[in-house]
Amino acid sequence: MRQVERIGISLEKGLLSGFDKLIVKQGYQSRSEAIRDLIRRELSSEQLNDPKSEAVATVSLVYDHHSTNLMEKLTGLQHSHLLKTISSVHVHLDKHDCLEVIVLRGRVGQISTVAENMVSLKGVKLGRINLIATEGEELLKK
Amino acid sequence: MRQVERIGISLEKGLLSGFDKLIVKQGYQSRSEAIRDLIRRELSSEQLNDPKSEAVATVSLVYDHHSTNLMEKLTGLQHSHLLKTISSVHVHLDKHDCLEVIVLRGRVGQISTVAENMVSLKGVKLGRINLIATEGEELLKK
Amino acid sequence: MRQVERIGISLEKGLLSGFDKLIVKQGYQSRSEAIRDLIRRELSSEQLNDPKSEAVATVSLVYDHHSTNLMEKLTGLQHSHLLKTISSVHVHLDKHDCLEVIVLRGRVGQISTVAENMVSLKGVKLGRINLIATEGEELLKK
Amino acid sequence: MRQVERIGISLEKGLLSGFDKLIVKQGYQSRSEAIRDLIRRELSSEQLNDPKSEAVATVSLVYDHHSTNLMEKLTGLQHSHLLKTISSVHVHLDKHDCLEVIVLRGRVGQISTVAENMVSLKGVKLGRINLIATEGEELLKK
Repeated sequence: MRQVERIGISLEKGLLSGFDKLIVKQGYQSRSEAIRDLIRRELSSEQLNDPKSEAVATVSLVYDHHSTNLMEKLTGLQHSHLLKTISSVHVHLDKHDCLEVIVLRGRVGQISTVAENMVSLKGVKLGRINLIATEGEELLKK
Repeated sequence: MRQVERIGISLEKGLLSGFDKLIVKQGYQSRSEAIRDLIRRELSSEQLNDPKSEAVATVSLVYDHHSTNLMEKLTGLQHSHLLKTISSVHVHLDKHDCLEVIVLRGRVGQISTVAENMVSLKGVKLGRINLIATEGEELLKK
Repeated sequence: MRQVERIGISLEKGLLSGFDKLIVKQGYQSRSEAIRDLIRRELSSEQLNDPKSEAVATVSLVYDHHSTNLMEKLTGLQHSHLLKTISSVHVHLDKHDCLEVIVLRGRVGQISTVAENMVSLKGVKLGRINLIATEGEELLKK
Repeated sequence: MRQVERIGISLEKGLLSGFDKLIVKQGYQSRSEAIRDLIRRELSSEQLNDPKSEAVATVSLVYDHHSTNLMEKLTGLQHSHLLKTISSVHVHLDKHDCLEVIVLRGRVGQISTVAENMVSLKGVKLGRINLIATEGEELLKK
């Protein structure tokens, strides 16, 4: 955070006190920090509308590891696409079920398609996709 | 907006310029206004977690007006509950289909149940529920 | 629902009993109806990705009716765009605040922009936008 | 999937053909599979309303690894709570920024609080939380 600017914001007394209570509960240490997070979230979700924007996706999949060929297919999907970075973490939930969290990196349009294909694989019981836009000087590069 | 406070916020130069571009596009006339809206939205969505909180719900329903008894059932649902205010607007979409938007007022838990019952009525093709928390000095009363 | 097809679905016993419990709670009268609603919701949200798709938007706005010129600006926005249908309903929340629900009809991209401009108007305290895709034989026309 | 039941569903011809097109695009191999996923998602999101329900959370955090003490605080948060399982994966995004994906397991209410505290840590630029309910014979145990 090298180049910092300071701006003034005016807001209703009641709105401010409500906000102060909420951010204490959420664990923030300052108003600036909480407002920066609100602004970053807004910019990031705006940027996801552009399918060519750079992003990371976290794909969370719950599946039975006895499912025939599921793990091979998942690995296949990860290698059949020109994605920049791929990592994954595997958690055993019980005797049958696992949670696999796969991190994809690439353009919004491309990684959305791969993520949807993962969720729809036979054997995947529950799937969630989280996209975070990482492009833009304003979001990450400072 | 009688009692206004002014606070200072520090944030990265790039983050600020990205935010400035976004809010111009969204039509805001000042940063304060845009940040107040972010804060209100955050407080309002937090408050929806409390089922006893006061709220309004906008229930949007697409249905075929030839559906047997649907309109009677919808009216019945609106009268069978002790909701504070009920309004509705009706839009003809085509020869068969209508959009009905029903506004419910009451506690979050109560109006969520009524809204879900409306969406699940036979004949309703598409339904969407929007809850807005209205309780709290910080949100509306200033 | 003139041309109806009947398909067979196989699913785990436990999943079926969980679903049966849920749809009773939601008020559905048959499994077919509940599954049709799940399918329509999925198709409709998919279609919203196409900015040229026909849709209706329900814009819910909470504002202080003492806000200078807000109502004029809202009306102006509604008339300055070539939207097919516009209706609105107005609810008094308390001495100061109103809920206005405005129904817009047009292409996804166009009505999203108008709706965002409404939410960002000075004086609007809380705003929510609900888009429902209405295009496609499969969604409404049968 | 030991105990499987077969049910019949009736739906409009157009709705069925639209659904068939969508699930081919999403990569499904059968209607049953696609409908099972819709049902599981619905049950799982319903269950998240109960704070005592068992769930896993995937917390995705983008942060600058030069942030003072952030990694210690993150580790502290993970150890200060009685959560059943914790895993994490770390991805380098560029010279400064990392994506850390942390998997939490526990009751909905408890892991939501921990996840919110992680997102609000000073130095975390963007955070997303994904909750998946895992409780219930109908969801995972078959």
